[in-house]
Amino acid sequence: MFEFWFEFASTYCYPAAMCIEEKAARHGIRVEWKPFLLGPIFAAQGWGDSPFNLYPAKGRYMWRDLERLCARRGLSLRHPSQFPRGSVLATRVALIASGEPWLPAFVRAVYHANFAEDRNIGDRAVIAEVLDRLGLPPDAWLSHAESPLAKDGLRAQTEEAQRRGLFGAPSFCVGDELFWGGDRLEHAFEWARRSHAA
Amino acid sequence: MFEFWFEFASTYCYPAAMCIEEKAARHGIRVEWKPFLLGPIFAAQGWGDSPFNLYPAKGRYMWRDLERLCARRGLSLRHPSQFPRGSVLATRVALIASGEPWLPAFVRAVYHANFAEDRNIGDRAVIAEVLDRLGLPPDAWLSHAESPLAKDGLRAQTEEAQRRGLFGAPSFCVGDELFWGGDRLEHAFEWARRSHAA
Repeated sequence: MFEFWFEFASTYCYPAAMCIEEKAARHGIRVEWKPFLLGPIFAAQGWGDSPFNLYPAKGRYMWRDLERLCARRGLSLRHPSQFPRGSVLATRVALIASGEPWLPAFVRAVYHANFAEDRNIGDRAVIAEVLDRLGLPPDAWLSHAESPLAKDGLRAQTEEAQRRGLFGAPSFCVGDELFWGGDRLEHAFEWARRSHAA
Repeated sequence: MFEFWFEFASTYCYPAAMCIEEKAARHGIRVEWKPFLLGPIFAAQGWGDSPFNLYPAKGRYMWRDLERLCARRGLSLRHPSQFPRGSVLATRVALIASGEPWLPAFVRAVYHANFAEDRNIGDRAVIAEVLDRLGLPPDAWLSHAESPLAKDGLRAQTEEAQRRGLFGAPSFCVGDELFWGGDRLEHAFEWARRSHAA
């Protein structure tokens, strides 16, 4: 089982989300998509905002590094006019869409809206449009995403992330083995292949 | 000019320092070794200790990740019984040894003592032994390292790091372009080669 833990507001999750399915396929690995929220995890360690906003030198570096990464991979990037963006609604949709064949395309479309189009993914209308473009009935999925079940599910998923030692995103889990950061993706794939072979 | 900014107490600098000269040579790049202290930079953003101690989930992950990295590269690792270790004296030696042909070997020997042998690199006798093994007169170099000139030089070097936007280590600078983390080393080499060719 290869888990990809992602947060829609996370900058470094953008390039990871755009490439992971294609890269995993080359290794014969199936990705399990695990949406979660970093906010509560950051709050638990005393941060009321993204560390990239709290620590300006780190933030300045991250935006420049992200520019270079996106350029290397041919990904569009428009510095979002708001950062981080509210990710709760999109994350709930991704959570209830677990196992749906359109989930990866939905995830990529939300990242594209946030980081390539500078659109407010915290806005219900933006998520509705993403669903609509995928040929899905927006109202049905959004109502479902706003149900107490989805709310509780996301809380549980975020608690699971914290319990399993996640502190940032993107993170990749292979059993108990945690890998953090897009630059560890190939290591995580190798670990998964070795574990499977063993 | 390809600058390698390193801090002797930094765990991720260990694998970077052990391989950088060999990797750079393959790209035809000469490394400029830039020792500095992270303590004052961390203090300026409100941290009185290593973030790996302040944020336990991050710390637990780092040690496991470092184990995996060292295993991949065939580097010994013994979890230091004290972390971070005092790096001021070793850093001053590295600073005054700028341009000396033995500097890279000294740097690697200090990292090896700290992370492969669990020795206290903050101890004058340990640094004396490292110098002695390299065939250098320990007393002469240590007295020089303890001079006001070396002290001021290190303060200036650390201020330069901060002014140039460094917030962690290892960092690599190619002109104004900053790369942070060992996993960005190849990107930094590519940048240096492109800048040189341009």
